[in-house]
Amino acid sequence: MTGPEIERLIQLLAKLPGLGPRSARRAALDLLKRRDTVLKPLAEALSVAGEKIVTCRQCGNLDTIDPCAICADPKRDPSSICVVEEVADLWAVERSAAFRGFYHVLGGVLSALDGVGPEDLSIAKLVERAASPDIREVILAMNATVDGQTTAHYVTDRLAGTKVQVTRLAHGLPVGGELDYLDDGTLIAALRSRRTV
Amino acid sequence: MTGPEIERLIQLLAKLPGLGPRSARRAALDLLKRRDTVLKPLAEALSVAGEKIVTCRQCGNLDTIDPCAICADPKRDPSSICVVEEVADLWAVERSAAFRGFYHVLGGVLSALDGVGPEDLSIAKLVERAASPDIREVILAMNATVDGQTTAHYVTDRLAGTKVQVTRLAHGLPVGGELDYLDDGTLIAALRSRRTV
Repeated sequence: MTGPEIERLIQLLAKLPGLGPRSARRAALDLLKRRDTVLKPLAEALSVAGEKIVTCRQCGNLDTIDPCAICADPKRDPSSICVVEEVADLWAVERSAAFRGFYHVLGGVLSALDGVGPEDLSIAKLVERAASPDIREVILAMNATVDGQTTAHYVTDRLAGTKVQVTRLAHGLPVGGELDYLDDGTLIAALRSRRTV
Repeated sequence: MTGPEIERLIQLLAKLPGLGPRSARRAALDLLKRRDTVLKPLAEALSVAGEKIVTCRQCGNLDTIDPCAICADPKRDPSSICVVEEVADLWAVERSAAFRGFYHVLGGVLSALDGVGPEDLSIAKLVERAASPDIREVILAMNATVDGQTTAHYVTDRLAGTKVQVTRLAHGLPVGGELDYLDDGTLIAALRSRRTV
């Protein structure tokens, strides 16, 4: 019905997270309608990204330079490292503007089910970085999932030999959250970590 | 935080229907992770599509050849034309394999609100095609929306001068549909168009 070129475009678009076969078809038609404003610039941006963007060998962030702009920034606090699962999490912390130290991207979480072991993550490199005398604090900013917390425990154990202070993000009521809609786990965590006002 | 190359990629991905800023970010990271299997092939497929795919001057379908594969197919029934709003609708009818004639893509619907008039749609071309002695039937397969039906009425009027029979898709109970969940409009249409068994 449609030529192989359109079919191939639809199939590739359907591989993007968030796009199924139906929405990929809609996206392909939309791209072909807006050829000069979206399709061609997107093809160009993809080529450029594919060629220029590299993984920072220091922290695992994605950038066009290695070390990345964050690792190369002399104005950042060299005494702390924030450990995250993925680059998306690094971006999320960076957007909050609440942290001015360096990062370390593990590249995933430990998962027995998916066969991800410690050697698949950038843990050895983190231990090496944490051993530097500059570093005083390692903040574990993994997701509050079972796998995320398992990984955090494991990383804590691995860092036991260094002199850094290992901290983790607080668990509790999200800002704007209502008690009535909160799950029990979060409510229990919030109660346990209650603070004097 | 992120380089201009990544930002540009995210911005362009966010223009796709079905992807917002957040899912575009996820898609961009996913693309950069699967560089050789998805990102590069997608960049290539987009370039090819942008260069090779053209609009068929006969029916308005998208293909790498003009006239398109459907218009050029000698095995199709030359006596009927199925009129659809968009290329996506043509594909939907074609997927059903219930129609073996030719198509005509209007390129939209009449809409006073959006300022779409008859001259913005491929209606004159349809009237010209319908005037050919080969054509005996024009099937109006517009969406069952207010704008779609308005357009169908208008096209019917415009075809009044030709000798073709103008038909439209049946309205009624969708296959697998349950009466209890059906809207009143469809139920009324299904009752009105009831048939002897």
